Amino acid sequence: MTFLNETHDPALRSWVASANTADTGFPIQNLPFAVFRRKGSAEAFRGGVAIGDQIVDLAAVAASGEIGGAAGEAVRAASQDKLNALMALGRPAWAALRLALSRALRQGAAEQEPLRTCLVPQAEAEYDVPARIGDYTDFYTSVHHATNIGRLFRPDNPLLPNYKWVPIGYHGRASSIGVSGQAFRRPVGQTLPVGAAQPVAGPSRALDIELELGVFIGSGNTLGEPVAITEAEDHVFGICLLNDWSARDIQAWEYQPLGPFLSKSFATTISPWIVTLEALAPFRVPFVRPEGDPQPLPYLDCEANRHTGAFDIQLQVELLTPRLREAGSAAATICRTSYRHAYWTVAQMVAHHTVGGCNLQPGDLFGSGTLSGPTPDQAGALIELTAGGKQPLQLPGGEQRTFLEDGDSVVIRGWCEKPGAVRIGFGECVGTVLPARD
Amino acid sequence: MTFLNETHDPALRSWVASANTADTGFPIQNLPFAVFRRKGSAEAFRGGVAIGDQIVDLAAVAASGEIGGAAGEAVRAASQDKLNALMALGRPAWAALRLALSRALRQGAAEQEPLRTCLVPQAEAEYDVPARIGDYTDFYTSVHHATNIGRLFRPDNPLLPNYKWVPIGYHGRASSIGVSGQAFRRPVGQTLPVGAAQPVAGPSRALDIELELGVFIGSGNTLGEPVAITEAEDHVFGICLLNDWSARDIQAWEYQPLGPFLSKSFATTISPWIVTLEALAPFRVPFVRPEGDPQPLPYLDCEANRHTGAFDIQLQVELLTPRLREAGSAAATICRTSYRHAYWTVAQMVAHHTVGGCNLQPGDLFGSGTLSGPTPDQAGALIELTAGGKQPLQLPGGEQRTFLEDGDSVVIRGWCEKPGAVRIGFGECVGTVLPARD
Repeated sequence: MTFLNETHDPALRSWVASANTADTGFPIQNLPFAVFRRKGSAEAFRGGVAIGDQIVDLAAVAASGEIGGAAGEAVRAASQDKLNALMALGRPAWAALRLALSRALRQGAAEQEPLRTCLVPQAEAEYDVPARIGDYTDFYTSVHHATNIGRLFRPDNPLLPNYKWVPIGYHGRASSIGVSGQAFRRPVGQTLPVGAAQPVAGPSRALDIELELGVFIGSGNTLGEPVAITEAEDHVFGICLLNDWSARDIQAWEYQPLGPFLSKSFATTISPWIVTLEALAPFRVPFVRPEGDPQPLPYLDCEANRHTGAFDIQLQVELLTPRLREAGSAAATICRTSYRHAYWTVAQMVAHHTVGGCNLQPGDLFGSGTLSGPTPDQAGALIELTAGGKQPLQLPGGEQRTFLEDGDSVVIRGWCEKPGAVRIGFGECVGTVLPARD
Repeated sequence: MTFLNETHDPALRSWVASANTADTGFPIQNLPFAVFRRKGSAEAFRGGVAIGDQIVDLAAVAASGEIGGAAGEAVRAASQDKLNALMALGRPAWAALRLALSRALRQGAAEQEPLRTCLVPQAEAEYDVPARIGDYTDFYTSVHHATNIGRLFRPDNPLLPNYKWVPIGYHGRASSIGVSGQAFRRPVGQTLPVGAAQPVAGPSRALDIELELGVFIGSGNTLGEPVAITEAEDHVFGICLLNDWSARDIQAWEYQPLGPFLSKSFATTISPWIVTLEALAPFRVPFVRPEGDPQPLPYLDCEANRHTGAFDIQLQVELLTPRLREAGSAAATICRTSYRHAYWTVAQMVAHHTVGGCNLQPGDLFGSGTLSGPTPDQAGALIELTAGGKQPLQLPGGEQRTFLEDGDSVVIRGWCEKPGAVRIGFGECVGTVLPARD
């Protein structure tokens, strides 16, 4: 394998020692972005880049004047409390910043001494949602999820006829997106109890997760001007972890005919770190449609998308119940899968979203949809893992779960690894269910 | 009828003479908000209030120091390029500003001379979307529309079982919302031609309108804390006109199972003027459910909502084709109805949206959904007016229309009137279809 540029060289080492361990997710080849401040402080949030167990404070770097040129402009843009200005600068600026940081953080770099004062330990940091998210779109890119869910409602005809043609998506709620650590009340809403003639209002009894990735849009497009699939990835700033909490009983009663609404509007949790597409370049894989499936329409198809459009990102969901927490036990892993199983790629999502002229803006967020893989243990939602609630999960210590209970925490982790490449991590995305409001 | 306060007194006259004519929509009893600047100028947009054929420039008023106290704070907030800061101040501030402007604009007011220099003729103004719209939610509050549309798809069972229980809504696209005057390209997208086995990509051939009202949220709520229906209207800044342009052929192919997406994301047009609930107070009417319909669940029900929760707002849709335009003919009126026919009220939309904990933010926008009335000529969309495209509209001069053609302009007008009250206008909401991109 050849590397796209020097920032991917697996031989690179950083003068930040913690970035050189085998198990760090944040080696010098990664350099993901977040907004952060010191925990419990009244400091302004500002952009930061992870390196080992440290954060490079980009506001401090900007103030130091150590990084100039196009990268300097990017560092100044990243000093704000949200990353929208950096995102709007576009791919050449992001690449310039990545290269400058990669060089400045290498062993032997002349910038070592001045940059050392710009480091903040991750253990002392707290994070915020990294962008002002103007619009949030949730896609439905796993054919396995669509089939599993469809089978629960339509056993004979699980997959709708449009699925293999249209990268199905819908608009989600932006205001209730929170960053890892989010704790939210169990939602109240209308549900139709089994066999009942009339609905009731009350706390959801079928609170679920959805294992997703989030895709942050960088540079936007003008209203009325589509983005060609060959240009689509130039508009993508990077990828994070995302949990699309879902109240299945509210969803079942409300979603016809206009789609999910309040069943998903009470909370959505994302990881603080955004991993750039450049960092993910070594983990691109071909996107191969199963034999017999239709080829995508031309606006959703190009050579690069077929050969390197997918990403092999490992994903894991862990459940930590109050009982496990009190016993000091580890969280139970309930799902392992990879993003490579998705039916539609990041580039296809961008091309489809804009084909009719819809304008994307810097900081917009896409959800991938639940990333269930082909086997049952790769399902990214409890409704799938438990066959619609009929087969409870068995947890360590004898507990069972169909849907989430109060006090449950869910942890999503993501990483890329393969022989000959350095491990690239996404960190974690954690959320906790609080009891419903009285 | 008793008036809530002095600002509604029909005997009030303004020193702005054009505000005292019988046909102005903008008498001193209205005082709607917009953001504007002088046409073609590079001035900053700022808040303004309509009075007759003039605009009170609120940035100029703030600079004049003529209005102080709580109203003064509101005027300063309204000096910005978007009204979000004014919206966030809450109902007491809006009421204080309304009262101060009402007094300052009355015949004989001491503020006449200083305020005269703060007037800008509407003929010299251009407008912008009045708020940064964080999230846009489109509801479905006309039972007549839901029934008409449902009948096209399910003749025997037009209305879904949840309709009379749930104020159905879904998330819409905020980035493509434009202000009256918006011209947009006919969208391109995937459609499944009748009888075809495979979809095609191309310009929509079934471009439609949806006659709606827009509801701007003023003060928000904290994530996890619902708004009670008795408090709901305190969170509403005001109401505008809204056209939810819809590509029916794209919609039919994409909308299962997650709802409309790109079929409505290419453009949404709103009127520049936001009429406050206070100005609409004389036009409140009871909301009466048809006999035999279920009563709303308690979180959607209260005395005030039943007795005065609906608004009798007259609505009209006009179509101006290129041929009518070239002939110098008037636009053809294709629909007349009233908002009073809606099945769910503004207060119910707010209470429902927040019941599960979803947070509303200042500047969020709700659409009412297509406001079709009970009779066929009161339908607010071409798909209803033409029975799914089967019965073309006959226009003056011998033209026909099923769906919109390139060059067509659609004008929505709204107003309130009744004996003993002064006419309250919403102005107009105009949009024009441009040919699809090559």
